[in-house]
Amino acid sequence: MPMIDRRGFLGALAAAGAMGVMRPRAARADEKRLGVALVGIGKLTQTQLLPALKKTTACRLAALVSGHPDKARKVAAEYGLPEKNIYSYETFDRLADNPEVDIVYVVLPNAMHAEYTIRAARAGKHVYCEKPMAVSVRECEEMIAACNKAKRMLGIAYRLHFEPHNLEVARIARSKELGAIKVIEAAGCTMVGDPKQWRLDKKLSGGGSLVDIGIYALQAARYISGEEPVSVTARQSVTDPAKFKGIDETMLFELAFPSGVLASCISSYAVFLNHFTVAAEAGRFGVDPGLNYHGIRGFRSDGKPLAFPDIDQFAAEMDDFATCVRAGKPTRVPGEEGLRDVRIMEAIYRAAESGREVKLG
Amino acid sequence: MPMIDRRGFLGALAAAGAMGVMRPRAARADEKRLGVALVGIGKLTQTQLLPALKKTTACRLAALVSGHPDKARKVAAEYGLPEKNIYSYETFDRLADNPEVDIVYVVLPNAMHAEYTIRAARAGKHVYCEKPMAVSVRECEEMIAACNKAKRMLGIAYRLHFEPHNLEVARIARSKELGAIKVIEAAGCTMVGDPKQWRLDKKLSGGGSLVDIGIYALQAARYISGEEPVSVTARQSVTDPAKFKGIDETMLFELAFPSGVLASCISSYAVFLNHFTVAAEAGRFGVDPGLNYHGIRGFRSDGKPLAFPDIDQFAAEMDDFATCVRAGKPTRVPGEEGLRDVRIMEAIYRAAESGREVKLG
Repeated sequence: MPMIDRRGFLGALAAAGAMGVMRPRAARADEKRLGVALVGIGKLTQTQLLPALKKTTACRLAALVSGHPDKARKVAAEYGLPEKNIYSYETFDRLADNPEVDIVYVVLPNAMHAEYTIRAARAGKHVYCEKPMAVSVRECEEMIAACNKAKRMLGIAYRLHFEPHNLEVARIARSKELGAIKVIEAAGCTMVGDPKQWRLDKKLSGGGSLVDIGIYALQAARYISGEEPVSVTARQSVTDPAKFKGIDETMLFELAFPSGVLASCISSYAVFLNHFTVAAEAGRFGVDPGLNYHGIRGFRSDGKPLAFPDIDQFAAEMDDFATCVRAGKPTRVPGEEGLRDVRIMEAIYRAAESGREVKLG
Repeated sequence: MPMIDRRGFLGALAAAGAMGVMRPRAARADEKRLGVALVGIGKLTQTQLLPALKKTTACRLAALVSGHPDKARKVAAEYGLPEKNIYSYETFDRLADNPEVDIVYVVLPNAMHAEYTIRAARAGKHVYCEKPMAVSVRECEEMIAACNKAKRMLGIAYRLHFEPHNLEVARIARSKELGAIKVIEAAGCTMVGDPKQWRLDKKLSGGGSLVDIGIYALQAARYISGEEPVSVTARQSVTDPAKFKGIDETMLFELAFPSGVLASCISSYAVFLNHFTVAAEAGRFGVDPGLNYHGIRGFRSDGKPLAFPDIDQFAAEMDDFATCVRAGKPTRVPGEEGLRDVRIMEAIYRAAESGREVKLG
């Protein structure tokens, strides 16, 4: 029944031990750190990715791509990056000529993921791309094809695949340690602030809360069950139409899995609610909060601990991708994984729109 | 927007103060305790209602109705009830001739609620009936009509309407103390043991987990929001078809309310999961567990306490009903309230069956 293969969520876990995957081995002198170009220097890049890069053992900051030269120079200076390694969107393709850059990490608004992933692949670079992978299944397929053609790796930035509490929840579920699982409650919600941010502009985001934050609930339901949904039902609500124009403020969606497991999922931009709770025959377990950058907490109804040291999830995912690139090993978060979510999210929007269950092939 | 009127969930709370409703005033010498006939002496009667009756201040045990004479005599002896006050289903209508009986409490399998409620009303008795009120909207309407015709009160045993943590959750929601509420997560689940119990026999139960335990989640979504749902979507799952024949083992259902609030609800006979969580603009609050007989715990994300002394919910609801009967005041849990749930549950089953949203009038 598990649809995520050996390279997937639990593969690395089983191979390395629950904490091993999270604690990068010390870089050997003969192992070159891979150069990462960050494309887009918005909030995520500045507050998370740049600090995380300093903690990685297999990566280093090699370039910045930005439409704001002043901002880029300031950030470059702060991180000791030579100005020659600053690119604009116009000069982006010249990354092809920069051997210091091995990996291009696309941190742009969703609607730009496909273009810059494809251009990065054509420039001969491996690509790591923020979630959601793109704004349509077709774009995802084009991104995968472009990377395949260029013989470059494509990874999607699903940081929770590297987060130990979430990995442990998936392990407990699949091992049936607390019996067969029956129901998953997964809430991926956050409160969006600035009404002018690109996330609220459908042309740039491709959707509302679902594609941005609800995707974590969708992911959790999939990696916890280890199954692919066979159908979805959904409904959405907007209580602030001035802020949420043509996008989902709140989306409830329900997933049916082949084993009979059901997932009840909540996505919202209007509340703080983020937890993944698994109800199994012999107890409950999960994470609450489940998707924060820091401070994730596990729980088990049998009172056994579900606790791990806090890690830098961004450093962990970048190190893993670089390690895979270096070793020529598949990543556990390939483009195909991103594509699956985009396909399911398209079905969720159709279900919410039509009021009807949508079957998945 | 609130559809539950002044007599409803919050009325008594506001009138009496959060704890006042729960702490029955001392009976005055001139106030006769009302005599209660318990119809059916199964587990709920024996483990909860009989002990609770001893704690009431406005009620007393006046009769038992059972199809098992030996069992009835044993229970009667234990509770000091004269043998003449034991009835069978054949002699049930003779309750009309017993002035010691004021209230008939129907604790039978769901499919028998309508018949015994109607017969009790015809016998001139007020009726308190276990939830779900009946197995069809039509039966509910007939029960209401019979009690109206006999000028007798009808109450449905929704014990959480008398449980202080639940009342407080509804109060916080409706007062917008933590901002407008946006999403309600409500899980009403339990694990059914004995596969031969009447609850698993659709002819006697009228449904599966939804009508028995999921109804608490439905209720919670309604009394917390103070609104009536305008449409439902749902899906069900059976993982043990030998045990759950033609009934829902697990049912997910989603309710849309006029204000835009959405409720994501879970009903299951296969797991322990029972909590009502409210996500509002400025925080989260709720109860977990939310529907246990004892040990309900409240939480608020702002760290303020949501805690009350544990009460006997069965004593509280029986005292309240007797007090209403005595004073000629409407109960906050009338037949109309039971009917609303049965109507919505019929819509939930239609939604799950068809895979389509079902609108509610």
